[in-house]
Amino acid sequence: MNILQARKAISEFLIEDIGTGDLSAELVFSPDKEGCGIFLAKTDGIISGTSLISLIYEVYGADVDVTLFKHDGEEVKKGEHIAHVSGSVIALLSCERLILNLMQRMSGIATATHKAVTLLNDPSIRLCDTRKTLPGLRMFEKYAVRCGGGYNHRIGLYDGVMLKDNHIAFAGGIKNAVELVRSKLGHMVKIEVETETEEQVIEAVSANADVIMFDNRTPDELKHLTTLVPAHIITEASGGISADNISSFSGTGVNYISLGSITHSAMPLDISFNSTEGKKL
Amino acid sequence: MNILQARKAISEFLIEDIGTGDLSAELVFSPDKEGCGIFLAKTDGIISGTSLISLIYEVYGADVDVTLFKHDGEEVKKGEHIAHVSGSVIALLSCERLILNLMQRMSGIATATHKAVTLLNDPSIRLCDTRKTLPGLRMFEKYAVRCGGGYNHRIGLYDGVMLKDNHIAFAGGIKNAVELVRSKLGHMVKIEVETETEEQVIEAVSANADVIMFDNRTPDELKHLTTLVPAHIITEASGGISADNISSFSGTGVNYISLGSITHSAMPLDISFNSTEGKKL
Amino acid sequence: MNILQARKAISEFLIEDIGTGDLSAELVFSPDKEGCGIFLAKTDGIISGTSLISLIYEVYGADVDVTLFKHDGEEVKKGEHIAHVSGSVIALLSCERLILNLMQRMSGIATATHKAVTLLNDPSIRLCDTRKTLPGLRMFEKYAVRCGGGYNHRIGLYDGVMLKDNHIAFAGGIKNAVELVRSKLGHMVKIEVETETEEQVIEAVSANADVIMFDNRTPDELKHLTTLVPAHIITEASGGISADNISSFSGTGVNYISLGSITHSAMPLDISFNSTEGKKL
Amino acid sequence: MNILQARKAISEFLIEDIGTGDLSAELVFSPDKEGCGIFLAKTDGIISGTSLISLIYEVYGADVDVTLFKHDGEEVKKGEHIAHVSGSVIALLSCERLILNLMQRMSGIATATHKAVTLLNDPSIRLCDTRKTLPGLRMFEKYAVRCGGGYNHRIGLYDGVMLKDNHIAFAGGIKNAVELVRSKLGHMVKIEVETETEEQVIEAVSANADVIMFDNRTPDELKHLTTLVPAHIITEASGGISADNISSFSGTGVNYISLGSITHSAMPLDISFNSTEGKKL
Amino acid sequence: MNILQARKAISEFLIEDIGTGDLSAELVFSPDKEGCGIFLAKTDGIISGTSLISLIYEVYGADVDVTLFKHDGEEVKKGEHIAHVSGSVIALLSCERLILNLMQRMSGIATATHKAVTLLNDPSIRLCDTRKTLPGLRMFEKYAVRCGGGYNHRIGLYDGVMLKDNHIAFAGGIKNAVELVRSKLGHMVKIEVETETEEQVIEAVSANADVIMFDNRTPDELKHLTTLVPAHIITEASGGISADNISSFSGTGVNYISLGSITHSAMPLDISFNSTEGKKL
Amino acid sequence: MNILQARKAISEFLIEDIGTGDLSAELVFSPDKEGCGIFLAKTDGIISGTSLISLIYEVYGADVDVTLFKHDGEEVKKGEHIAHVSGSVIALLSCERLILNLMQRMSGIATATHKAVTLLNDPSIRLCDTRKTLPGLRMFEKYAVRCGGGYNHRIGLYDGVMLKDNHIAFAGGIKNAVELVRSKLGHMVKIEVETETEEQVIEAVSANADVIMFDNRTPDELKHLTTLVPAHIITEASGGISADNISSFSGTGVNYISLGSITHSAMPLDISFNSTEGKKL
Repeated sequence: MNILQARKAISEFLIEDIGTGDLSAELVFSPDKEGCGIFLAKTDGIISGTSLISLIYEVYGADVDVTLFKHDGEEVKKGEHIAHVSGSVIALLSCERLILNLMQRMSGIATATHKAVTLLNDPSIRLCDTRKTLPGLRMFEKYAVRCGGGYNHRIGLYDGVMLKDNHIAFAGGIKNAVELVRSKLGHMVKIEVETETEEQVIEAVSANADVIMFDNRTPDELKHLTTLVPAHIITEASGGISADNISSFSGTGVNYISLGSITHSAMPLDISFNSTEGKKL
Repeated sequence: MNILQARKAISEFLIEDIGTGDLSAELVFSPDKEGCGIFLAKTDGIISGTSLISLIYEVYGADVDVTLFKHDGEEVKKGEHIAHVSGSVIALLSCERLILNLMQRMSGIATATHKAVTLLNDPSIRLCDTRKTLPGLRMFEKYAVRCGGGYNHRIGLYDGVMLKDNHIAFAGGIKNAVELVRSKLGHMVKIEVETETEEQVIEAVSANADVIMFDNRTPDELKHLTTLVPAHIITEASGGISADNISSFSGTGVNYISLGSITHSAMPLDISFNSTEGKKL
Repeated sequence: MNILQARKAISEFLIEDIGTGDLSAELVFSPDKEGCGIFLAKTDGIISGTSLISLIYEVYGADVDVTLFKHDGEEVKKGEHIAHVSGSVIALLSCERLILNLMQRMSGIATATHKAVTLLNDPSIRLCDTRKTLPGLRMFEKYAVRCGGGYNHRIGLYDGVMLKDNHIAFAGGIKNAVELVRSKLGHMVKIEVETETEEQVIEAVSANADVIMFDNRTPDELKHLTTLVPAHIITEASGGISADNISSFSGTGVNYISLGSITHSAMPLDISFNSTEGKKL
Repeated sequence: MNILQARKAISEFLIEDIGTGDLSAELVFSPDKEGCGIFLAKTDGIISGTSLISLIYEVYGADVDVTLFKHDGEEVKKGEHIAHVSGSVIALLSCERLILNLMQRMSGIATATHKAVTLLNDPSIRLCDTRKTLPGLRMFEKYAVRCGGGYNHRIGLYDGVMLKDNHIAFAGGIKNAVELVRSKLGHMVKIEVETETEEQVIEAVSANADVIMFDNRTPDELKHLTTLVPAHIITEASGGISADNISSFSGTGVNYISLGSITHSAMPLDISFNSTEGKKL
Repeated sequence: MNILQARKAISEFLIEDIGTGDLSAELVFSPDKEGCGIFLAKTDGIISGTSLISLIYEVYGADVDVTLFKHDGEEVKKGEHIAHVSGSVIALLSCERLILNLMQRMSGIATATHKAVTLLNDPSIRLCDTRKTLPGLRMFEKYAVRCGGGYNHRIGLYDGVMLKDNHIAFAGGIKNAVELVRSKLGHMVKIEVETETEEQVIEAVSANADVIMFDNRTPDELKHLTTLVPAHIITEASGGISADNISSFSGTGVNYISLGSITHSAMPLDISFNSTEGKKL
Repeated sequence: MNILQARKAISEFLIEDIGTGDLSAELVFSPDKEGCGIFLAKTDGIISGTSLISLIYEVYGADVDVTLFKHDGEEVKKGEHIAHVSGSVIALLSCERLILNLMQRMSGIATATHKAVTLLNDPSIRLCDTRKTLPGLRMFEKYAVRCGGGYNHRIGLYDGVMLKDNHIAFAGGIKNAVELVRSKLGHMVKIEVETETEEQVIEAVSANADVIMFDNRTPDELKHLTTLVPAHIITEASGGISADNISSFSGTGVNYISLGSITHSAMPLDISFNSTEGKKL
């Protein structure tokens, strides 16, 4: 993760919540009042975003001590302490909601990813994300996928080519589309082709696409289709796959399964913050 | 919604996805190639964010025609057309994911809100949101809550006072806390007090708080507690309420129920975009 | 005050003045030349903005020692020292004008506010500000009003409702306007109604507005009108009130008087900065 | 004025006031409701900022018709119409306060400048401003000075050299200071020297400074000092001059008088905005 | 190229040059004075950046008519007209320098690229750029490389992996380094390995790197080394290659040659702008 | 140089290169892995930008020790060490390219400037730059010119007036143009006039321009033209002068020669960065 970008985003996020000031905290507590607090897991899951706790206090401008008991990618059990923090009460209260909103979202994604990996139960297949992330949060959400044991698909429209039905139709077929793109594209960008029929798979192979995606296929279809693709071309199954049916995709022989649901439908992991005045918990 | 703020956010969101360019679209299509597309509901729900479709194309800088068939806050049924768009194919493809990601999130929130209102089935109680929104998206998410028939709690820490356990403990009780705040606060800001015991409710009433929140109470407890509060003080139930049990809160006599789940746990509404080259669908 | 927002604003303010560099200081002094200086009151008043002195040096990026002798909200007399500072001469000279321009403006507002409070001489009436602040400076100016013993009206258009003549006319009267707004507005936002006639006051009372403003009324009219309003509705007098006549509003029974002049017409408090090279004054 | 910079500033100013939305206007009026309004002078003065009216609506994103009856730099009399506007009521109300706050400040500065020019009543002496402008508003305030018949001193620390007591002391006298600076400075930047004694004036002349400032001098002293300076060196009187005594500086022979008060102590010109629904006034 | 990013950059670039206003143009010409101008090639080369001409006027906020005679990637000869423009004289003069500075730089890069391609004279080898671009201009410079017939290497550190000596040393050899990275990296990112010895080339082949770079090799060495690499792995020669010796790299069998000099050492293409008042040239 | 502006620019520059993260470094090295490196001159020249090394690490957010062996403006010889740095390996690698790209460009400009000064070999003539700098880099490039022994012409359009052919034509001659501008311009801005004929020089002298530029003149013509200009008016030769012919301009009597080529055509100075893990070099 680029910490510079994270800082810039966090600054905007804090301003969104605090606006012209935290009325409740600033009117009750004096600036030098110290306090402490605990970030606590309220359900089981995989944690992500703990490294942002101290970054958020830093961007806010407060000198808060943070002791982490759980690190990104680790399992947490209900009731376990994630972090202890101590510093200015106003800082703790003003930053509380952003830390929770961000860490709950990220941990929810890590947990959903981990759950899908576990259900799939096939170490030869990697799970990856999609671009179905929430606007402004992509870097954080893609990081959370990695915390959960998943892999990142392309970050955006600029770092990978994905040829879909309308690109293919306009170019006059997969082969033409791949050739057209390859004639202009540098050697550090991969070209993925979305296929909907067996003929398209064969055409994508002959076009020597870097990655072939099988769109909306059953496990049995995938078992067959993967036999058509030589080893040096990566295969990806996508569409119609969720936590409910992912276990049936074990053994299909694809290299990657991409799952929009691990980001767009992840439930937040329940985390609470209990704070108190005084420097000891 | 402040359109200026929306434009600024959308600009950042588009840059997050498009980066230095949409490789796939720019390498396949010429800039003057025209196309069209349909935004289509794939499940039933309440739509929110349709007004952003044309704003997103505008911020991107493209001249895209948008015809809306559904407006924010309206019900959509699976298969119904939400909007038809026509313009530059590159623009349609480059903006597609942001429009879907944002509209699916917002419509998911509107749908979850509407569902909770329907389940509650008590027009004397209003549902409202919390600050449990995703960083950078609060204005959009709070707008979506309104589209679903809900109401907005305070926007952030700056436009409402909420006195929680640690504010109260530090100030030496609810009465002291309210008085302390009121001695410094202008007359356009409301003061809400979070209560956990009947004694606290009574103290909050005597402190003449503007709003009294009952934290984590059963419907029966609420029926009793609301009788302790005079009509000019607004009451709010919060904590432990979700779609699963909200119907049991009907008839409790509170004025507001705040639900974090309508934002933090809303599932995205499934919407697809089908595009094609050519100016006719 | 939100320090994050203050830092962001100060960064822009410094760049406005320093541009591509402070030619005079950079061409004369070496970067490691140390100096010191005194911020000095040249007239009596109430000081505001002292907490920004060290923040401005910090944003500039210099390590300057600041010793404050006066704190925000305190009285200063002509000739009194407000702060001593020592550090890089270039930093002291490059930041001097911004510190003075901001602190003089803020102290001028605090002083004007305090003077109005003193002239009013009625502790049962609070003075508050308006939105007549200078663009880009609202957070600073509203803070200064509090330093002078005043209270803040709403911050902007987003954190309070004010129904004026054209809202009322369009909605078909005060009652309709209040009901229309209340039907859509959450419970944490107050509704103020501007009234111009006794009938409107009565209508606003029956609409149960949170705050009733009496526009452009004499003290005697106010004494009468306040008797029409029950205690739980806050009253505010506005319009035609200035330092010249505010003492006559003592005893009118209103809760608040809002004064545009404490911001828009505040004279800057005269403060000077005397600096010298060398680490001792 | 650089319109790009003006747009950027206006965008920030509008967001400061409107935040997440204009609650009053958006809850009462539908987006397509049209209205109109009049900007009206309530006292006599010189107008400045009229060209920003349409720019503010444009930045806001509304299509508002603006007819100007007064242009920047023109005199307005109490009761005269400055501009008629018509367009979306929500836009008119949401932009109203910014337009007034900015135009009143700018016109106040133009008026104060014009008054000082008139009182001075010596066409051989030009009035100019200082860097005593409000943070974030310098470009607007310096423009307003020009509207009032004044001239601009340097914009900031980057476009002119001003050698004051501490620069001079450190460099070891005026001559050394000027030579030091001139040895590093390009030919497009002027060097002004602040003088406090006759000896310093003589030294500044011999150093061939581009501009010599006489600090805190009486008219009689100025009459003498100007005789010491050859015609190709510009002279400037500064300090201790205000509207109260400026007429006595007529005939002193200086080329410029700089007045901090025309910006820092300018009273806002009273301008009102009367709006109504419907497309006709 | 992402037009949104281009607009944002251009806005900053214009503000850098115009600051608080174009003194010369604004003091001489009235805002409604119309003029026209010609962009003219003063030497032969490949043009790049013509599409930015109208974008720059648009960002500035002026309505300028632009007729292009040359399009990006086309050859221009000394004396040929690139574009005719007509509109506000102030706009033409205020934008002139940015258009020239940017278009001359971009065309210089396109020309240098084209020259290198021509000298190489081997259609089986593609020329590509590096990250040796000027800060803030990468998107524009990489676009210019494409205009000149070159290809883009990775955009930045985020869209491609390049394992150099220190990565390899730390990971304990090329194989370990590639495996370490591949164990965490998604399938849409390519891994390039920099090699300095034949053993390293063999190791990189066995590690199945996506791209193998031969660092600082003679043509003869390259002819040998390429025989060690199977066809599905892309090869790149880098280091020690410039316009002076590139022709000797023809026939070496590598797939790509990367050349820092086409960006970092490109001479600007000489282009002038001749403008005149009046609407006709 | 304004460090605040430098920081802001560097932040953008780092984000341009690092994007969502340095894949190579972050996947290979742990965040706490320390390393060190040497910045090394690979050719002779004048160094510029060394002071930015530590600033870049600071903006990135890393604690890197920097020991400078060469300071801005000093000569470096091939093989000499410019700086030693030690700190996080990830930081060293992520910042490497920006430091090199910026320092090579700046040192290239300093070197080109110094070379031109040396070739000119006339201490009575100063070399200065133009506005032909790369967009977004002007402050850095003008600083580099000073490091090389050159002087800065105006920074942009806002801090100096330059009257060229079309300003002059529109105003009706040089005298009219200068008078028009002077009638509105403050006393801290210089007016330069571009002349193409002897008559124009004479007219510019009689208009008392602050600076007279001789456009595209031979050394002999300059020797004559300078005799027409009194000593208090600064003269500048511009156009058609480059490193190839600059020595012939020695003794022409002009005060300044402005050279676009020292910025627009400067070759980067070759500097390398050799890093290694471990805390010792």
